[in-house]
Amino acid sequence: MEEENKRFSTQPLKGMEDSYPSNLRLDNWIIDQIRDIIEVYCYEEYSGPLLEPIEIFAAKSSEELVQEQAYWIKDKRNKKLILRPEITPTLARMIARKSQEFKKPIRWYSVPTCYRYEDTQRGRRREFIQFNVDILGENSLYAELEILNIIIDILTSFGATSEQFQIYYNNRRFIDAICDFILKVPKNKISLIYNLLDKSNKLEEKEFLETINDNFKEEIIKQGILILKDAKSIQEVLNKFNNIPDQFLESQGYKELSEIENLIQDLDITEYCSFASNVVRGLDYYTGTVFEVFDTGKENRRAIFGGGRYDNLLSLFSNEELSGIGFGMGLLMLKLFLETYNLIPEEIMNSDYSDVIYIASINIKQSQYAHKIARELRYEEFPCIIDYRFENLGNQLKKASELGVRVSLILGPKEMEQNRITIKNMVTEEQKIVEFDNIIDEIYNIFDDLD
Amino acid sequence: MEEENKRFSTQPLKGMEDSYPSNLRLDNWIIDQIRDIIEVYCYEEYSGPLLEPIEIFAAKSSEELVQEQAYWIKDKRNKKLILRPEITPTLARMIARKSQEFKKPIRWYSVPTCYRYEDTQRGRRREFIQFNVDILGENSLYAELEILNIIIDILTSFGATSEQFQIYYNNRRFIDAICDFILKVPKNKISLIYNLLDKSNKLEEKEFLETINDNFKEEIIKQGILILKDAKSIQEVLNKFNNIPDQFLESQGYKELSEIENLIQDLDITEYCSFASNVVRGLDYYTGTVFEVFDTGKENRRAIFGGGRYDNLLSLFSNEELSGIGFGMGLLMLKLFLETYNLIPEEIMNSDYSDVIYIASINIKQSQYAHKIARELRYEEFPCIIDYRFENLGNQLKKASELGVRVSLILGPKEMEQNRITIKNMVTEEQKIVEFDNIIDEIYNIFDDLD
Repeated sequence: MEEENKRFSTQPLKGMEDSYPSNLRLDNWIIDQIRDIIEVYCYEEYSGPLLEPIEIFAAKSSEELVQEQAYWIKDKRNKKLILRPEITPTLARMIARKSQEFKKPIRWYSVPTCYRYEDTQRGRRREFIQFNVDILGENSLYAELEILNIIIDILTSFGATSEQFQIYYNNRRFIDAICDFILKVPKNKISLIYNLLDKSNKLEEKEFLETINDNFKEEIIKQGILILKDAKSIQEVLNKFNNIPDQFLESQGYKELSEIENLIQDLDITEYCSFASNVVRGLDYYTGTVFEVFDTGKENRRAIFGGGRYDNLLSLFSNEELSGIGFGMGLLMLKLFLETYNLIPEEIMNSDYSDVIYIASINIKQSQYAHKIARELRYEEFPCIIDYRFENLGNQLKKASELGVRVSLILGPKEMEQNRITIKNMVTEEQKIVEFDNIIDEIYNIFDDLD
Repeated sequence: MEEENKRFSTQPLKGMEDSYPSNLRLDNWIIDQIRDIIEVYCYEEYSGPLLEPIEIFAAKSSEELVQEQAYWIKDKRNKKLILRPEITPTLARMIARKSQEFKKPIRWYSVPTCYRYEDTQRGRRREFIQFNVDILGENSLYAELEILNIIIDILTSFGATSEQFQIYYNNRRFIDAICDFILKVPKNKISLIYNLLDKSNKLEEKEFLETINDNFKEEIIKQGILILKDAKSIQEVLNKFNNIPDQFLESQGYKELSEIENLIQDLDITEYCSFASNVVRGLDYYTGTVFEVFDTGKENRRAIFGGGRYDNLLSLFSNEELSGIGFGMGLLMLKLFLETYNLIPEEIMNSDYSDVIYIASINIKQSQYAHKIARELRYEEFPCIIDYRFENLGNQLKKASELGVRVSLILGPKEMEQNRITIKNMVTEEQKIVEFDNIIDEIYNIFDDLD
């Protein structure tokens, strides 16, 4: 009884998306393909609550995420709950809760939906699905290599090449060592350098220079930041700085980064991986290796996703030391990347009735018989549809044809009386009458002929 | 640097659950099995945003759901958003948005996570997964039958029998017709009758009688409610009422219910379906057929899930008339039901490394070779793990054995030099040295022998 003008909008909220079957088929196709890769690396799936106490995010994620982009709720005790903007703090909590039960290294993945109340733009929504893959309790740099390999396998499994993507890696301890031993940056200003490097791709040259000048007086630091903004190899960094002290060369950051570089060469994945000293990642919990995967096409040069190593994952919850490395890959960004390079087969989004058996009947008296046949077919795992019109056979078959059905069964009074079925190959338009007991074989015959 | 007493709790919020891999395996096993059934009925999966404007729920769901049990958020424009307590209003919005694009009948399903801020109890959580299956735009009662068949197929596919569950069905228009034509209930008191019937199983006899007496004076209405509370067949209802007017026998409600009863007989599913006049469902949008699936075991007699027909699904959003019927099945309740009758295979929750290839190495020099082999195996879709210790072979093989691995590869300097691999059957403890190129065949041989 509502009047026209009282009707509600049919649009989803801003930044949210309706997943119609065709969209969901595409999402599921991508997710399943990634799952297949992750599972040959023996990662197990977990999931956790969408709502968490806001404190466990405030303490470890970025301030921007919690202060500006969080969706939150007050519960009946006036406690703030957050709709998770990412899943890592939940992972930490879950591991801390039962750490002793799990053999290390722990290889886990999850496909959570997450929420960030931010301005929407290409590749970003307020509600989004993010693949999360983590290996925990493996301190050697082989964990880094495993994660890099998984990323390469995922992207190449879709057909992407090293001309289309590149994993840019760096190490936060390496940047720390440069700040400490070469640039002598005061401790309280190191996070500013991280901030600047993180934004260096997004800021205009002029703006970037201004921000440096506003914040630093020392010429060596200003020059240092500009070097770190652009350097494309460890050697380049070393060459551009004068007077590199031994302390730096003996630092964990320098050593780790050099070792990673060697391992990448050993494993023959240099094609996909490059050093980039401006990659530092925005989240506060990263401590060592960090990386960002870039679309390297000329026109769409941009980060697709990233990750890194975080030590002391459990520190909010327990004494236990546990280091991990992982990545969070937004499904939407990945989809845009795949679309850019035509890596999504067109037919994925179409609904597919080619294996469906369509049951049409001449009149209502065959209703019971139609259901009996459907039960038999479904028991044999054939998807099937009964047309409930039970009249006007022509329209029923037209519908089957429109859906793209390849096999229809036609039931009339005579068929029913004799326990037979008319089976029609919708492609060749041939039809014949067969015994009820032979129907499964006859269906297989038609599919065999057509395939 | 946190001190012990500043640590956060590792427990999830009340009414929420951490899904560790073993739990998630079980959930996914159940979900996949249900999916398989739904897909032979040709239902397509959709999903929608978790957040919706609260109005579309306030208008169509139950008042309790929105007033008392909703988790909601105020957005930056002070608009109330709800964390969906169910998905039907979203379904309605999505269909209304693009109705013309979809051929009727529309068969859709979804597996949304939903939220209700209610007291937690056995079988209920504040965050829960609910299977939703709907057929829309099919006005004939065959849609009802299809939904009943799907439910029966789902439950029997897990091995449940008609001794363990029963679908109790009713029709709201039938109850309306009784109220109108037999009991002459004033229009404004009909919803009270629904309320009473809905709670009749939960209230004590005494309390139930008191509530009737408090609300109704007319003896015929009081008696009528008591009849409807217990009647187990349409005939029983008719027998217990005197003077049934023709208007009642000609009512849509009576006719529909009688026809459903006939169809249930025709389709030979009487074993699983019974009439129960007190089943009316709590949600406001149901208009015709309603049903509840009960665990009928003596000790755990309780509703597992339910559903029904809703006409004018789209009325909040458009002029189009569209009728649908469907059900929402909570995963947790289903799981409790299956557990009660031992219908969940124990091994489902165990992690399964029986197909994993474990790569152990004598020393670090085989690292590169190990990765080369792993790449080959993963390319052939064998899940495999490299032990990154690269020392103490005994410990590596012990780990493989603990995990339940059946095939390990052992790499030493000699193997590497000769491009060979030692392959070990972890069950028989036999091992031999094979050529790199034959490794896939040799793995298949061992699995064939063991299976």
